[in-house]
Amino acid sequence: MHQLVLLRHGESVWNQENRFTGWTDVPLSEQGLAEARAAGQLLKARGFDFDLAFTSVQKRAIKTLWTVLEEMDRMWVPVQPSWRLNERHYGALQGLNKAQTAARFGEAQVQRWRRAYDEPPPALEAGDPRHEAGDPRYRELGGAVPRTECLKDTVERVLPYWRDTLAPALRGGRRVIVAAHGNSLRALIKILDGVSDAAIAELNLPTGQPLVYELDAGLRPLRHGYLGDAAAIEASLRAVAAQGRAAT
Amino acid sequence: MHQLVLLRHGESVWNQENRFTGWTDVPLSEQGLAEARAAGQLLKARGFDFDLAFTSVQKRAIKTLWTVLEEMDRMWVPVQPSWRLNERHYGALQGLNKAQTAARFGEAQVQRWRRAYDEPPPALEAGDPRHEAGDPRYRELGGAVPRTECLKDTVERVLPYWRDTLAPALRGGRRVIVAAHGNSLRALIKILDGVSDAAIAELNLPTGQPLVYELDAGLRPLRHGYLGDAAAIEASLRAVAAQGRAAT
Repeated sequence: MHQLVLLRHGESVWNQENRFTGWTDVPLSEQGLAEARAAGQLLKARGFDFDLAFTSVQKRAIKTLWTVLEEMDRMWVPVQPSWRLNERHYGALQGLNKAQTAARFGEAQVQRWRRAYDEPPPALEAGDPRHEAGDPRYRELGGAVPRTECLKDTVERVLPYWRDTLAPALRGGRRVIVAAHGNSLRALIKILDGVSDAAIAELNLPTGQPLVYELDAGLRPLRHGYLGDAAAIEASLRAVAAQGRAAT
Repeated sequence: MHQLVLLRHGESVWNQENRFTGWTDVPLSEQGLAEARAAGQLLKARGFDFDLAFTSVQKRAIKTLWTVLEEMDRMWVPVQPSWRLNERHYGALQGLNKAQTAARFGEAQVQRWRRAYDEPPPALEAGDPRHEAGDPRYRELGGAVPRTECLKDTVERVLPYWRDTLAPALRGGRRVIVAAHGNSLRALIKILDGVSDAAIAELNLPTGQPLVYELDAGLRPLRHGYLGDAAAIEASLRAVAAQGRAAT
């Protein structure tokens, strides 16, 4: 049996400001840091341990992971960062306030950009200073740094990472934690559980709550569940669901 | 030309208490954390950048590195931890107060254990709870977890890491930082500069001060020097040199 723990990063400063983040590299808020500490303490108290850790190249996920490993006294566990675990690229919406965007484009359109499986938000234009084209962490992508993504695009770039990196680590008997983002984790869950295109976008993940998968020898999920108590998960899910509504 | 930056971790809580540390996994002190932050800010201000980072499996070095990368806004740089970059194992002296040890064994003997190239301190006995034999981070060592080391032993375990990991990374054009310990860095400097057995033990490294090597295509050092100002390095070296004297 194989053990895989998924962890969505804690609250970022742009979650607080209710702005679309995507590939923008914003730090955790103080609340987000506290969520990460609590996740590490919970994992330690429940006897979890890890051999390998994976994360995105975005600091809110990396800091969440580092904080968890520090709380668990496991700072020496190797950490592998990859852009393939990044949040979904949010295109020209990156940096915009969600409520203002809803007021401008209509709440229905914004909900489609957030929830439709294959409808990407408007793309960043060439030369937009928000485009991460020159960022050295994306050097291996050359000119192919995304300008926008729908969830389908995110799934398509997470799939090779699952197949070539995560699955072999699990098959090799390693206990794995993945600290990542709402949509890269949705992608992993879609792959693991075979969730339909329509259903996956409706799946909300609470921040800072370890989600434990037990997998059989063929890496098929036997069961999964959150470690935290139901009230904490419910509260986090309510906060996540409230984002993106027009200010009233 | 290749760039290699060596960084000794900042002060640990046992440096503060003047105790022999070795493989004991003690955290940075507040002062040590401040040193790490300053090192990161200095590297950033002087335009340094890294493609790969290497460290030991001990939290005082890892935390130093994480803090540097956070200050440089380079948290996504891959970090590779290895026991081969650990501090020299200090055997049965681990945990003992340096001044008390000097009073008991004589300052001359303690100075030999600290400075002789090939005279290890007394070994930890089998079953000593201080021995790291059961620690999962040393699983790959099996029964061969050291019970003590002289500097020669440390050089002998660092050499394969230089040859098989660090040198290939540098030859591949990667800009490398190594955050490690007084003796594992002495080992690297001995290898790089061909320092004699007698001279290397007399080389003191200041904590938290980036030491920059420029290497030619054959990885021979062209020049090296500290980034920090002379007064800061002198002050750090004085503090390091004062350790291990009998309390008066």
